[in-house]
Amino acid sequence: MRLRNKPWAKDKLESYPQYVVANPADHKGKWHEVFGNNHPLHIEIGTGKGRFLLGMAKANPDINYIGIELYESVIVSALDRLIEEELPNFKLMNVNAVDLRDFFEKGDVDRVYLNFSDPWPKKRHEKRRLTYQSFLKIYEDILVDKGEIHFKTDNQGLFESSLMSYSEYGLILKYISLDLHNSDFEGNIMTEYEEKFSSRGSRIYRSEAQFR
Amino acid sequence: MRLRNKPWAKDKLESYPQYVVANPADHKGKWHEVFGNNHPLHIEIGTGKGRFLLGMAKANPDINYIGIELYESVIVSALDRLIEEELPNFKLMNVNAVDLRDFFEKGDVDRVYLNFSDPWPKKRHEKRRLTYQSFLKIYEDILVDKGEIHFKTDNQGLFESSLMSYSEYGLILKYISLDLHNSDFEGNIMTEYEEKFSSRGSRIYRSEAQFR
Ligand SMILES: C[S@@+](CC[C@H](N)C(=O)[O-])C[C@H]1O[C@@H](n2cnc3c(N)ncnc32)[C@H](O)[C@@H]1O
Ligand SMILES: C[S@@+](CC[C@H](N)C(=O)[O-])C[C@H]1O[C@@H](n2cnc3c(N)ncnc32)[C@H](O)[C@@H]1O
Repeated sequence: MRLRNKPWAKDKLESYPQYVVANPADHKGKWHEVFGNNHPLHIEIGTGKGRFLLGMAKANPDINYIGIELYESVIVSALDRLIEEELPNFKLMNVNAVDLRDFFEKGDVDRVYLNFSDPWPKKRHEKRRLTYQSFLKIYEDILVDKGEIHFKTDNQGLFESSLMSYSEYGLILKYISLDLHNSDFEGNIMTEYEEKFSSRGSRIYRSEAQFR
Repeated sequence: MRLRNKPWAKDKLESYPQYVVANPADHKGKWHEVFGNNHPLHIEIGTGKGRFLLGMAKANPDINYIGIELYESVIVSALDRLIEEELPNFKLMNVNAVDLRDFFEKGDVDRVYLNFSDPWPKKRHEKRRLTYQSFLKIYEDILVDKGEIHFKTDNQGLFESSLMSYSEYGLILKYISLDLHNSDFEGNIMTEYEEKFSSRGSRIYRSEAQFR
């Protein structure tokens, strides 16, 4: 993700508290209050410009979505789309995934989406991959029992290491596609990166992993 | 594997008891007597014409190998190669993998190789895949503790379903390559099918799975 300096981004995010959760720690254990209903909560980590969750939120009005993104300058583009579309079941959070346990307690989240996460190809950087063991522990600590991680990427090395990491952690691989766009998977919603890489001819990999 | 009718195959296999184990059930629990040493025992299931194990047996004289193949008309070609090469650490067994527990007891086998196993793509045939749950149970029952299954295939569907089957069974995926011939894996020995399919441009998939 190329970062542009957008000094106004922080102010803009703060001006839309109905879309960008302002003090997420305040809602730990009571996210249904934020959405005003008891629908399941699915979060995407590293949501970028929000294209995937926007599509998901439109397609599934009975599921609540939160897009989590580290960079103000990126998430502000997701906010722009949300302002246009006014979706009641899609919110944004400008936080770091390593801190998720500060905002969610065990059972708050029903599913985690990871899409085209940064690959960190060097072995010495493997701990930074969002599917590394320490991140799986974080997801387990906020997910319901038997919660799931749904993951897409074009990056072969990241997909290989993620499947190994899941299996080492004891997650069950319930679904694997080694070529999503030539599979019989239905209702796929593309992310920004997916659009870009698949149009260049890259294979897209996808998995669903479930905690035991 | 195209089967040719070779009525003489059975007689030929029986004429070489030094290469083709005649009464495998007699050696259950005491395979070291057959090889005259205590080296580890690795078996390949569906060994076909034996190219892979021939290469492995030459490269690793301190490991014993048994190639297991259902069809007389196919395994007889492996026998021909073995007669030429006279390897003391490579034997053949003309049996069905479903009966492996009749020939090996828990701990007899140190590693199982599966190469280009029949894919059985239809869902209603999934029980016939050599990586189906019931086969994993058989392998567990003859392998040492923490024994491993090493698997190669060009078949995307079979590889996907095998990774899911391993993970459902609780095996740990220790190694995954989604493009073996463009990976840094060293010392790969090609099978007949691998040679054929990779020369046509197919990707080769490879995994190592370990019982917990
Ligand atoms: C390669 S982009 C993919 C964006 C989008 N998911 C897609 O598929 O188009 C990865 C995104 O993850 C974000 N990210 C990386 N690490 C993060 C973390 N620890 N917490 C939150 N976001 C993170 C990055 O800022 C970046 O926007
Ligand atoms: C597609 S061929 C692959 C041969 C070889 N491994 C290779 O990679 O070139 C699969 C082989 O597995 C054998 N086979 C299939 N099911 C078997 C079983 N239950 N027990 C023993 N061999 C079996 C078939 O007869 C066939 O020779």
